[in-house]
Order: sequence, then C-alpha cells, then structure tokens
Amino acid sequence: MARIAIIGLGLIGGSLGLALKRAKIVDLEIAGYDEKGTSRARKLGAIDREARTAAQAVEGAALTIIAVPISQVRSVLEEIAPALAEGAVVTDTASTKREVIAWADELLPETVSFVGGHPIAGKEIAGIDAAEAELFQNRAWAVIPSVRASERAISAVENLVALVGARAVIVDAAEHDSYLAAVSHLPLLLSSALFSLASSSTAWPELASLSGPGFRDTTRLASTPPELSHDIVLTNRENVLHWLDRLAEELRRFRALVEDGAKQEELFKALATVQSTRDAFLRELPARQTGTGAADMLSAGERITAFLMGEFAVRRTKEIQEMLERSERASERPRRGDRP
Amino acid sequence: MARIAIIGLGLIGGSLGLALKRAKIVDLEIAGYDEKGTSRARKLGAIDREARTAAQAVEGAALTIIAVPISQVRSVLEEIAPALAEGAVVTDTASTKREVIAWADELLPETVSFVGGHPIAGKEIAGIDAAEAELFQNRAWAVIPSVRASERAISAVENLVALVGARAVIVDAAEHDSYLAAVSHLPLLLSSALFSLASSSTAWPELASLSGPGFRDTTRLASTPPELSHDIVLTNRENVLHWLDRLAEELRRFRALVEDGAKQEELFKALATVQSTRDAFLRELPARQTGTGAADMLSAGERITAFLMGEFAVRRTKEIQEMLERSERASERPRRGDRP
Repeated sequence: MARIAIIGLGLIGGSLGLALKRAKIVDLEIAGYDEKGTSRARKLGAIDREARTAAQAVEGAALTIIAVPISQVRSVLEEIAPALAEGAVVTDTASTKREVIAWADELLPETVSFVGGHPIAGKEIAGIDAAEAELFQNRAWAVIPSVRASERAISAVENLVALVGARAVIVDAAEHDSYLAAVSHLPLLLSSALFSLASSSTAWPELASLSGPGFRDTTRLASTPPELSHDIVLTNRENVLHWLDRLAEELRRFRALVEDGAKQEELFKALATVQSTRDAFLRELPARQTGTGAADMLSAGERITAFLMGEFAVRRTKEIQEMLERSERASERPRRGDRP
Repeated sequence: MARIAIIGLGLIGGSLGLALKRAKIVDLEIAGYDEKGTSRARKLGAIDREARTAAQAVEGAALTIIAVPISQVRSVLEEIAPALAEGAVVTDTASTKREVIAWADELLPETVSFVGGHPIAGKEIAGIDAAEAELFQNRAWAVIPSVRASERAISAVENLVALVGARAVIVDAAEHDSYLAAVSHLPLLLSSALFSLASSSTAWPELASLSGPGFRDTTRLASTPPELSHDIVLTNRENVLHWLDRLAEELRRFRALVEDGAKQEELFKALATVQSTRDAFLRELPARQTGTGAADMLSAGERITAFLMGEFAVRRTKEIQEMLERSERASERPRRGDRP
C-alpha cells in the first residue's frame, strides 16, 4: 500500500484528495491532517486515514502535499522534517514560492526532494465544504523544483498535476513570483481597491443598487479570504509593488487618452487592440492544453503508481545519483555555508 | 392590437424582444427594425413584424424602445420624431444618459414622453445570436424620466422593466452617469488597462500560461466591443476622469500599506473590511428590492465586522511578524544548498 499525505484539508487540500480518489489508483492510501480536524474530510471521501499530527500523516508517505496557508508552511516543514522517509517527495500549494523554496532548502533533510507547486485555481469560498474533485480541471499548475530536487521527484509532481486534470508549467521561484504578481496578485489588489473605493463612497447604496455583473466579476477577487491576500502580499511584496507601479502608469496612459479630445482615434485603437488580444487569448487557451489533458491522465496514473510502488526499487539508484551529484557540486564550485 | 417597437436588434434589443414574447401578453405585436436587417430576429422569435425603416416601426406604437449604440441614438430620434403617435412613450437602453436625455428634449415633439432606460446587464458578445430572454432576470434597470415625461409614461417603462424580470431604479441623468462611471465605466477601463499591461509584457506567453480564473474574471470587461466602450467614455468623460483619479488615489493608499512593514495590521484590516463588505453586499442585494433600509443594515454589519476584526488583526499581525522574523534570522544563518 502506497501512501500520499495531505497536510491541510481546506479548499485546496480537500479538492486534491477528492481528485486523487476519483482517479482510482490501486492500493493508494491518502493520509490527511488538518489542525481544525479531519473527520469532515474523511466523511466527504477526500482522505482514507485521519492522522492526529502532521508528522504522523507523513510517516511512510512517498509523496507529501502541504496545503496550508503560506504563513503556516514554515512550521509544517519544521514539524514534518524529522518524520519524512528517505527519498520522500514533498510539494506544496502556496501562492508565492520564493519564501517557501527557501524554507524547504533550510529545513528539509537532504534525503528529501522538495518540488514547489501552485495550482492556479480556487474560489472565494474557503474550507473543506467548498472542495470539489473538478477544481483543477484544465487549470494551470506551476511546478517549481528546488535546487536539490531529483528528476524523479519533479516528474512525480508533474504526474500528480496531470492526474488531477491540470497542466504543469515548470518555472523557477523568482519567475513564478514575478509572473503571478502580474496575473494574480495585482488583479487581487486592484479588485480590492475598486471595491473599497465604491463601497466607501457616500453614494454606496445607490452604487450597489445600480451595479451589475461587470462590477461583480471585476471585484470577485476582493472576496478572497483576507488571510490569504495578506500572506500573498507579504511574501511577494517587491513584485507586487513593481506591478502596482506599472499599472498606475498604464492607467495614466488611458486617462490621457480619455481626457484629450484629439486622441479619440488612439483611444479607440487601444480599446480595440485590448479586445482583440483578449479574444485571441481566450481562443488559444484550449490549444495550450493539448498534450497534457485527459488523454494523458491514464499514463499519469500509471506513472504515479509506478512512482509510489517502486519506491524501494528506485531508492538505491537515487542514492547513487545523489552521491554523484553531491561530489560533482563539490568539485565544480566552492560551497558556501556548509554546516560544520 | 397594441404595438411595441424595438429599434436596434442586437444583444439588448433582441433579448428584450425575446423576454417580452415570453411574457405572453395578449394582443401584443412587436415591430422591429435594425439597419443590419430584421429576418434573424424574426426567425428567433424576438419580433413579430419586420419594419423597413425606424420610422415605419414606430408607426402606431404605444411604446418605442431604442436599443442602438449611443452614437446612433441621436439620428434615430431625429428619424422617428415625425412618425411618433400622440401620447407615445419612448425609452432607450444606452449606457450613459445625460446626452440622450438632452437629445430627446431637443428632438421629440411635446406630445411624446421620453423616459430613459439602462438595463445593467449584458455580455461581452454582441449581436442578435447572443440574445436570450433571461438576460435581464434579477438585474437592475435604471429608469431616467425626462423633465416632460408623464407619470403614465414613467409607470409604463417601470412595467416594461418588471415584465422582463428586472428591477427598476429611478435616478436622474446626472446621478446615473456619475454612479455608472463608478460601478461600470471605471471597471471597464480598469479591466482594459490590466489586460493591456499584461498582454504588452515581453513575458506575456508565460503570464498567459500561468493565468487562471481570477485574471479571466478581472479582465472580462476588456472584451467589451470597443465601439461600446468608446461611446461610453466619450459621452461620460468627466465622470470617468473623476473616478479614474479617485481610483489612482485608492491604489496609492493600498500601495503605501503594502510597502510599509509597520502598516501590516492596517493592510490586513483594509483587506478584511473589503471582503466582509463585499460578502454583505452579495447577501443583501435581494433585500434592497423591498425598499428597506439596506444602507443602515450594511453599516451595522460593517461596524460589527470592524469590531470583530480588530482583535483578530492584532493576533494575526503578531503571527506574521514572528514568521517573517524567523525567516530573516534563517537567512542570516548560512544556508545549505545556496547557489553561488
């Protein structure tokens, strides 16, 4: 019996459990832990076994998924580090990655591979009761290998992603945080600022009564749980500030086009370009998904089974590889900060 | 046989026809005209009779609905003015109202009542084929009587609104344009600026591949047909500029909270207030329709949230500080596996 551990059984952890169960992998046991309790997740069928601590959940797990808020990732890593099996793979689902990767490098033993993860999916509603097996279907899922992560660990996480219906996008941590600041964290703050502006107006009752689906969609992200928004902003502050400044510039550009009666043609062209570019973006998204979709799910299932089952068989190969890699690194460059 | 005329059979005019037909009013004939032709609207069942000109459509019509782009409203008013019956009621569906009301005052005979209208509904897709009878269901519909409009005319338009499932909100033209600038035209420009910024980045392919439902929703309005966006901005320029400036201020306020490490509690409270206010807004929208004091309820809700959040924010700020301090201490220590 192979084991996957999920630490944190909210919307993401719960949905991941449900999606894995739906994939019907033979002889797989999902152990789960959440500080708020595990019985609801068990009842909903997201996990098989309820652990009483995070450390207990990861015992004997080939793959551990940390799906707690960013502000708790560090302490979870600290807690599970001593309990992780040799060769275990650890991933997470946090929305920013540089801090998380640094924590994993610092806290996890060298015998463990950390491969960061970030499913670009979610809802404004948090918690296990909002979980659904379909949550990751056709969504992007950023995969961010740590420096020490083995190829085997990276492909285990890629297979996990494919198994739940998502599309893996491999990036490094700095790229991830910079890109996500643009397409996720900036929209989040923008949405919040827009809603804050409207709702703090003295005319808010009138504004609310005259608002429609456009206002509702544009401000949807303002309903993100504030703990999550705050964590994101705190752990990606520089990138967020950078994109906030670039947006302010872009808004000034649009403002100038609106204000200047002589620039109406330019304004129209700007609006028309945005519309046609967005339509192209919507049309081409399905094309991006080809080659990673449903057709590959079966083989991803086979691959993750092989990964889980062949744990022992591959361990030796891995140990040898790591030994070789370690000695290569040592000979190639001076190593800073080796522990005494 | 009573007659309603619809001039302009795109998404809005077509949906209005379908919604009226669904209401199964006895002995009602809907005459329609569109410069692009009327046969598709007739085939889809949105109109009963195809007129060959706008003037022909309004002959004998008790109620005329002008559902053409704002930039064409003036010429339609000019064309139908001589053909309107005495006592006829004319309404429209344009997104801005001051210009339209002024044109109606100038061009329509005194025997005709003009009551402006603006259904706060729509889609990014234009045209008769996107029309649906359900489009206005539970949506707001601003009703803007001109100075000369009779009580009878106002209630005729209110009844039309109720008949298609929407909720009439009576406002004057200046209020309408100011309010809609905040909850519709500003979100539209914001959405366009955000999409423009991301899509003009050199990293756009990566940004696109890592974007999710949040980016898609926040930029949905950027897919508005540029003719419509441009018309709106042109006919409501001052209000749009006003709200663009206020948003720039609000973004600067958020930026300062993000940048200043000492203001994390304030940032968290700002995000938490936005979230709880938006949740209250979503919950209380049906209550607004009964005419109760939704504004007072909301501020009571906000007050208790602020009270509850106060304690939580203090505790959380402490947790976050501890997390960041731990991570700072860790980065001061030599770390394993650092790249040179």
